[in-house]
Parts: sequence; structure tokens; C-alpha cells
Amino acid sequence: MTDALPMAVTMGDPSGVGGEIVLRSFAAGELDDRAIVFGDASILEAGAKHLDIAVPIRRVEDDEYVEGFLNVVAVGEPGLDDWTPGQANAPSGRAALAYVERATRAALDDRVAGVVTLPMNKEATQLTVPGFVGHTEFIADLCDVPSVSMMLTTPDVAVTHVSTHVSLRDAIEAVSEERVARVIELTQQVLSRFIETPRIAVCGLNPHAGENGLFGDEEIHHIIPAIEAARGKGWSVEGPFPADTVFYQAIERDRYDAVVAMYHDQGHAPMKLVGFETGVNVTVGLPIVRTSVDHGTAFDIAWQGVAFTHSLRAALDYAWRLAGVRSPQP
Amino acid sequence: MTDALPMAVTMGDPSGVGGEIVLRSFAAGELDDRAIVFGDASILEAGAKHLDIAVPIRRVEDDEYVEGFLNVVAVGEPGLDDWTPGQANAPSGRAALAYVERATRAALDDRVAGVVTLPMNKEATQLTVPGFVGHTEFIADLCDVPSVSMMLTTPDVAVTHVSTHVSLRDAIEAVSEERVARVIELTQQVLSRFIETPRIAVCGLNPHAGENGLFGDEEIHHIIPAIEAARGKGWSVEGPFPADTVFYQAIERDRYDAVVAMYHDQGHAPMKLVGFETGVNVTVGLPIVRTSVDHGTAFDIAWQGVAFTHSLRAALDYAWRLAGVRSPQP
Repeated sequence: MTDALPMAVTMGDPSGVGGEIVLRSFAAGELDDRAIVFGDASILEAGAKHLDIAVPIRRVEDDEYVEGFLNVVAVGEPGLDDWTPGQANAPSGRAALAYVERATRAALDDRVAGVVTLPMNKEATQLTVPGFVGHTEFIADLCDVPSVSMMLTTPDVAVTHVSTHVSLRDAIEAVSEERVARVIELTQQVLSRFIETPRIAVCGLNPHAGENGLFGDEEIHHIIPAIEAARGKGWSVEGPFPADTVFYQAIERDRYDAVVAMYHDQGHAPMKLVGFETGVNVTVGLPIVRTSVDHGTAFDIAWQGVAFTHSLRAALDYAWRLAGVRSPQP
Repeated sequence: MTDALPMAVTMGDPSGVGGEIVLRSFAAGELDDRAIVFGDASILEAGAKHLDIAVPIRRVEDDEYVEGFLNVVAVGEPGLDDWTPGQANAPSGRAALAYVERATRAALDDRVAGVVTLPMNKEATQLTVPGFVGHTEFIADLCDVPSVSMMLTTPDVAVTHVSTHVSLRDAIEAVSEERVARVIELTQQVLSRFIETPRIAVCGLNPHAGENGLFGDEEIHHIIPAIEAARGKGWSVEGPFPADTVFYQAIERDRYDAVVAMYHDQGHAPMKLVGFETGVNVTVGLPIVRTSVDHGTAFDIAWQGVAFTHSLRAALDYAWRLAGVRSPQP
């Protein structure tokens, strides 16, 4: 059944680069037929005119697609009056949220194989939903899942994180044996979907992974016990490794399929350096497949016909991979 | 005068890769005549035989060099009985320390233009000097300087650090306005030796540089005031930037000459990924020029004829650059 399901692509904030990327990807033949857009069909029609490209748009139901068209599940219509390319505003932020909600529910109902998200703008959404934390947390909530982890991938390696959007002080507190073990488990689960025995490397928290307790003892008290527990399950888990060499070993030497990072920048800084324009975010721990492009709404260049489209292609490829379906080449 | 001075290269632990790298660099024509080795001439002679390469070795005084020879300032002779390639031992660790001390004093006395160090082994040195912290701290001590900073460079960018070999908890405590200002100043000073207006980017401590206080407030209380003070002096200093994008901007987009990192792995992880085999360490804040190769003693491969030599060449080039002398091409 999954083989026939489409993959949902949420259009993101209509003021940002999402809609433009969808249109230009389709026009360039980079979008497979089974990628259907959850968004605003009227804005996409206006956008195609604005960009002066011919894109045959067809309004479809959640699990429907017709070859040769850009298939769009039209989720509400905030009205073109609200389309203000490059500007954050409340209707735009609200609309982006609605696309994600509809697509997530479609995935939970097995009407789509997964969800690939184009960027929302947190500030725009906060104009309607004060205290809105983020895209990922919103989806986790809809899926009724309390704890997820962000995985950042390039074609070479995947990186999961023990914590992400918290201060570095709080990130240190988050390094508990239980949490590290959980993130190793999530990493193992997600990679097992397409690698028989994923090779997982775990970072230390401190420089030189603490050098046997010389610079901090979180490795000894929390990280090593979590690694040992994981190895006890027969998984290929090694570490803790110094964070300043493990990425080289994983990426350049192909020694590992995944790296478990202890905090946001430990994983993000190396990954954004090697995969700045090809990175994909994967939310692990959800009951559905969800990947995301690795860039923001980029209001400064939105709808000018210059935004990169390859991150969407990479996010789609990874979503198909996770869905257990060979990526239908466009 | 400086133009005529040689550059000291300390041989490092005789059991490690240092001596081998010197010999093979010379044999390959990668070592300029003015690079003189502070080390053990007998071990180098035996090592050349062991590696089966012809290297004409000449014993010289600290400020002397003769073209066509590998010039060696013979510092003590622990005796070949002590030469145990690939094994940490007390005489070897002690000898490495003596080479560094002699070279540092030669630099302080203006007999050499600077010091390029090959790796010591901390454990080996600790067999004689319990509590020995490290190469850099030892040199700082000889120079009577209380506070230095480690700068890691590739041909594209230099990275300085607010702290290095302390736990991540202590690294957070080290982020004070005073210390950040000092490291910015050291960065400005060292790059000014060869760039008129160095473009310096400063990292935040927290993810997304704290996102205006949402994830930690060290940026607001310490880092931003230090940046503003530096800008007040007319220096080109920007930030705080999220650590997961600033390296891309500096390296791939050439927007900055230097990045000030708040802690060890923030600077080391990206740099070791892009410059794993070409990185150079520079100690900033010393009264002398000191650079170092970006690898360790590598006992596991020492004296087998396989250790990379290009990090020594890179460290020499950078030392000549800092000395204000055009690198004498070999």
C-alpha cells in the first residue's frame, strides 16, 4: 500500500521561500509526481505568474496525485490579500501552521507516506500563537509524542542530538544516562530502517571527551554507561569520542553511519560546514516519517527566483528512504 | 636582522613521529635551509639509517645554519639506549622538554625567529614531571606570560578560543566580558602582523547565539559588551554569531579572517573537519612566535615512514608569516 501513497510536502510560510522552491523544483523536473503539496493553490498560481514559469497546478485530496501536475492539497485560502512576499505577518504564519497540521494528520491516517516540511517562520506564527516553540515540537504534539530528537543528515552521515534548543548550561544538565540511552535508541531505530547494523559513534560532552575525568566527568557517570547498555543489546555503538575528531572519522573515513551529539552546536557546526546546502533534518521518535529542509524562510530573498532547491530534493529523497520506498526519481 | 635568523623546529618526543617527519621532510626537499632542528643529532642519524634515507646532518649553534644540511642544535644526548620508537618512556619525555626549553630561550634571546614545535607526549613527560599540563603552558611559563590563547589555523581562517582544556561547565564560567575582550585583542594583535584590518567574527556560547536571551544570556551580559568595546577601538569585530553557521561564512564565503570561539570543541570540531591534515596551532599572547603541528606523537605509526609531513610545512609557513618574513621556499 505504502508504495502507492504520495509524500506530503508542506509549503511553509507563504511569504518565505517554500512556495517558490516547490514551483521552481517542479518546473526543473526535480519534483516527483508523488510529492503533493499541502498549501495554498491560489498563491502558487499567482507565484508561478510572478516568477513567469508555467506550472500546471491541480487541486487534489490528501492521498491523491495525478501525473504531470503539481498536485496541491488546498488547505484553507487566506486570500491573496495576505500574500506579502518577504514579510512576516499573522495570516501567513497561521496558514503555514494549518498546512503542517493537515499533512501530519494525513500521515497519521496513513493517507500519505510521510511529511517533508518547507520552512515556517517562528516570529510570524508567534503573532497568532504566543509562545510557539517550533515546527518539530508542534508535530510531536499532534502525534502525542513527548520526546523526539532532531537528526541532521547529509548523504554521508546522520547526527542526532541529546538536546537542541536550550542554553549550553541546560544542555549539560540534559546529559543523563537515561536521555543519552534514549537518543542512542532513537538513532538505532531510525537508521535500522535502511541499514542492517548502523555504526553509531557517541560524542563526549567535554573537550577530549573529558580525558578520563580530567576535564569533567559526565562521560564517566552518564555517557559510558549509556553506551555500554546499548552495546549490551548487540548494537554497534562506540565512544565516547572527542567531538573534534569524530566527524572527520565518520565523514571522511566512513567509519560511522551516525554520530550522537550531546548538544546543538556540537552536531550542527560540523554538519552545516560539510552539508550547508544539502543537509536534511529528520525528526526521530515520531510515529510518522518527517523530514525537513535545512534552511529557513529566507524572507530576504523570497520569491526572487534565486532560492536553492536542492535541499527539498534531498529532504524528499531521505523521506522516501525512511518510508522504505525507493525514491521515485523525477 | 630577523631576515637572517633561522627558525627553530623542536624535534618532539624521540619515540614519536617528530624526528621521522623532520628527516623525511628534509629528504623530500620540503624543509627550508633556515629551519634548524632542536633535538638529538644521534637519534636523527640512527633514524635516517633506520628509514634508509640519506640526510646530511650537521651540528650547529642555536642561531646558525649551513645550506644543504639538516642543521641540528644538539640538546643533550639521552643516549640511543633510550630511543624506543613508539614507546612512551621517561628519558624520551624529558628530552622533548629540553628541546623546547632550549628553543624557547633562543627565541627569547632573538637567536631564532620563532619556534615550531613537533609533538611531545604528555604521559611520557609526566613520568618525570608529575602534573605536567602541556606544551603550551610550559612555553608560556618560560616566557613568564600568565595568559595565552590557542589559535588554530588553516590557510582560510584562524580560530582563537576563550578557553581550551577545561570541562564544558568550567568553559561556561570562563566566558566573562574581560576574558572575551582579551581573546579578541590577542586575535587582533596576531593577525595584524600580516593583515591590515583583520575581519574577526565572534561566536555566541549558546545555540543560535542565545536567540536574544531565549537560550542563555551569556551573549547579552558578556559577549556583546566585549564586542562593542573592541569595535570602539576601530577593529572590525562582528557577532555574536551562531556557531553552526559562522564557520561556513568564514571558510566557504571568505567573510572573516578569524573566528573567536567560546570553548575548545566549538572551534576545534569545524576546524579539524576542514583542515584535518593542514591545521596549524599558534600560541597567541607570547612574546615569541610559536606554531605547532596539528597532530600528536602518533606512537602507533612512529618511525614507520608513513607519518604525514605537510603539517610541519604548514606550521613553518605560518611561523615565517608571523615573523614577518616571507617563507623561504625550500
